[in-house]
Amino acid sequence: MKDKKIPTKIFLEEKELPKFWYNINAIMPEKHEPALNPKTLKPCTLEDYKEVFCEELAKQEMNMTDEYIPIPEEVQDFYTMIRPSPLTRAYCLEKVLDTPAEIYYKFEGNNTSGSHKLNSAIAQAYYAKKEGLTSLTTETGAGQWGTALSMACAYFGLDLTVFMVKCSAEQKPFRKAVIETYGGKVIPSPSITTKIGRDILEKYPNTGGSLGCAVSEATEKALETPNCKYVLGSVLDHVILHQSIIGLETKTALEKYNIEPDMLISCVGGGSNFGGFIAPFVKDKINGTKNYRIIGVEPKSCPSLTRGKYAYDFGDTGKITPLLKMCTLGSGFMPSANHSGGLRYHGMNPIVSKLYHDGYIEAVSVEQTKVFEAAVQFAKSEGILPAPESSHTIRVAIDEALKCKQTGEKKKIVFCLTGTGYFDLKAYSAFNNNTMVDYIPTDADLQKGFDTLPNITYNK
Amino acid sequence: MKDKKIPTKIFLEEKELPKFWYNINAIMPEKHEPALNPKTLKPCTLEDYKEVFCEELAKQEMNMTDEYIPIPEEVQDFYTMIRPSPLTRAYCLEKVLDTPAEIYYKFEGNNTSGSHKLNSAIAQAYYAKKEGLTSLTTETGAGQWGTALSMACAYFGLDLTVFMVKCSAEQKPFRKAVIETYGGKVIPSPSITTKIGRDILEKYPNTGGSLGCAVSEATEKALETPNCKYVLGSVLDHVILHQSIIGLETKTALEKYNIEPDMLISCVGGGSNFGGFIAPFVKDKINGTKNYRIIGVEPKSCPSLTRGKYAYDFGDTGKITPLLKMCTLGSGFMPSANHSGGLRYHGMNPIVSKLYHDGYIEAVSVEQTKVFEAAVQFAKSEGILPAPESSHTIRVAIDEALKCKQTGEKKKIVFCLTGTGYFDLKAYSAFNNNTMVDYIPTDADLQKGFDTLPNITYNK
Repeated sequence: MKDKKIPTKIFLEEKELPKFWYNINAIMPEKHEPALNPKTLKPCTLEDYKEVFCEELAKQEMNMTDEYIPIPEEVQDFYTMIRPSPLTRAYCLEKVLDTPAEIYYKFEGNNTSGSHKLNSAIAQAYYAKKEGLTSLTTETGAGQWGTALSMACAYFGLDLTVFMVKCSAEQKPFRKAVIETYGGKVIPSPSITTKIGRDILEKYPNTGGSLGCAVSEATEKALETPNCKYVLGSVLDHVILHQSIIGLETKTALEKYNIEPDMLISCVGGGSNFGGFIAPFVKDKINGTKNYRIIGVEPKSCPSLTRGKYAYDFGDTGKITPLLKMCTLGSGFMPSANHSGGLRYHGMNPIVSKLYHDGYIEAVSVEQTKVFEAAVQFAKSEGILPAPESSHTIRVAIDEALKCKQTGEKKKIVFCLTGTGYFDLKAYSAFNNNTMVDYIPTDADLQKGFDTLPNITYNK
Repeated sequence: MKDKKIPTKIFLEEKELPKFWYNINAIMPEKHEPALNPKTLKPCTLEDYKEVFCEELAKQEMNMTDEYIPIPEEVQDFYTMIRPSPLTRAYCLEKVLDTPAEIYYKFEGNNTSGSHKLNSAIAQAYYAKKEGLTSLTTETGAGQWGTALSMACAYFGLDLTVFMVKCSAEQKPFRKAVIETYGGKVIPSPSITTKIGRDILEKYPNTGGSLGCAVSEATEKALETPNCKYVLGSVLDHVILHQSIIGLETKTALEKYNIEPDMLISCVGGGSNFGGFIAPFVKDKINGTKNYRIIGVEPKSCPSLTRGKYAYDFGDTGKITPLLKMCTLGSGFMPSANHSGGLRYHGMNPIVSKLYHDGYIEAVSVEQTKVFEAAVQFAKSEGILPAPESSHTIRVAIDEALKCKQTGEKKKIVFCLTGTGYFDLKAYSAFNNNTMVDYIPTDADLQKGFDTLPNITYNK
């Protein structure tokens, strides 16, 4: 590979790292409808949010006007430890695929949390500390968010309780061990430590839990603990804001080498990495200066964009969170035991939902066996074992590159590789042993979820 | 941390990556004594080595004259995917320790093998492919080497059989899953697939295996398989040669910012990372142009440098490998079940042994509970969960930084962080639960190992 014009990895220098996050809400042609207080059905006020969330995060959640929001210096300092993440040209994958396409990936998994989640965790822990809190609660599904937040809390000296979806806690004992090493307390959810948990256990004693249920428990716990707030690793707009660091770095790296992407691809669960990755690119698309394809990838087993409804819904099973206008399968939708815990969520961030609804972005859904085929092909050629979630992205990136092989087009495909699969080896073993199956909900399965939608509209 | 003169992470640009490995053997004031053929007790010839090893690797093993050896272009291409590894200034750890010392670490764990092992694995697989081989055999203890080699073999399309120390295979099922994902075949050792394995199982039916025994099995398997050779991840000089990429990058990064190290620290098992890390620095020390302290760190449970003998010994339990002049506890030494599988080896690379014997380097031994205390302190401040092996290094780096706190000296401490601990969470759990114990062999324990030494001297 002599005379290559673009290095395999593009690393920004420390001085090139973003000093501001990018707030998509400020430039949306039409803002998404506001979150509603479930008691009053009126838009959530700062006071409403502050009951559960840190004040500064609540302000960010409501900020519809400031395009650039400064990254606090302490957070920047931490970012210099875990960032910049490389933008890598997938020369070896291109060769294996024998495609004329150029493939680039922004790799967010090179930190102990194993994913992009640390970008927001450190910001949230910082604001909590600054507000004088002593502890936080959260939920975790696959475990990346819980790990990331435990790292952030250890760094700033905060206590942490993590409600971990029970089946994940059992499938991934080592995730629990990492969180505990960082000083976090892990409670498998549903648990007897909260009223909501006890209620669910009474109704469904053998349940493996769900993210929606863990959210309810963590929120309840925060409300009853002094000097404690609840934090969330996805779905909300302030999380997307923090994750915009991914997109900002990617854009700077591409511009450094005059690379004009044709498409941007990433997986969507609650929307956090996807929203952050596409943030500065969406701006160009809205402005009309660029016409990238922007593609979200979701599992066929939990298709909130491709088969969901655009409606107000609760973020949790216990129905205590604010109501969000989003693409949703209904808070009562029970996703199958797909191996991508991070994509097993009924709803979707409101910005991402609105962009999809308004046609600025596309969505594709894929089956998990096809996802793992792509994962192994990527692992063997690029030397990174990807997370199941990220492998959804890889599947579509490879499919697009193979289309280019057919057409001869030299498209530039840029994707976000959100994390590593080191804690997902039961899934890889299932794939290696040919025991992995695909789950595709029937229309009747989906209808059961839709039946739990609250049927609320917002009148300005 | 405004106005800091040195960025948190120093990344070399692709064009600054080394094009040559550095061969310490070429500049040793006194060469180490040669490996001996165990049948003839004469120095191993190229023909001897070629029975088991790839020819090019055998030539590198015997090369005592060429200071710089070109890195093949295909290997350089792969290095651009996994390298450069960052040299990180541990600003946060320094702050937590409140030390005037400057601490830097070269982080080799940011790849799917989780360690530096991939640096040599890819080189060895390349030479095997070039020689026209179709398969390789090896052994693995902790699992890093087996993982790295499976990645390298997948990249070059070679079959691989890995004999994995049985207790490790049982402790670390996920390591096995990664190796299998990359297409490697894992056989817990001792096994019934080799004569040596069957003999050992007959004698010790309940043994958990040892690295020495797995080496014997892998060698036997290679000898009886057509178009197959045996490769080794540590101990031999050509492995140190490949690992010199670590030291070369470190030195370039330090020089870029005019950082003059006072000491260089890394852990020593078979010597591979340590030898590679110190390679270009040893040159300065031998030349007399610099007076760094160079410190190898080993576990108190397996103290081949600090309590071993400098003598000819076998590399394996089955006594079929060449005899090496090295610091050794005897090939019959049975190390305790310490959590650092990578440091559980009776011998030591001949170059490292000779440098230690001749006083160019120091060695320190540490207890594993103290090691894990350092690991957790590092994980919380620097955001990386270190491998148990690497944490030996961290223990000594922290101790040296704390000495600086006492004396007020602003020493510059540079260490090699060889890997991550994502597959060592049983060890972390034991530490978290206070069930971890320390093993220190008595003089009588050591004597049992010394009694197995072959008592051979070499007369030129």
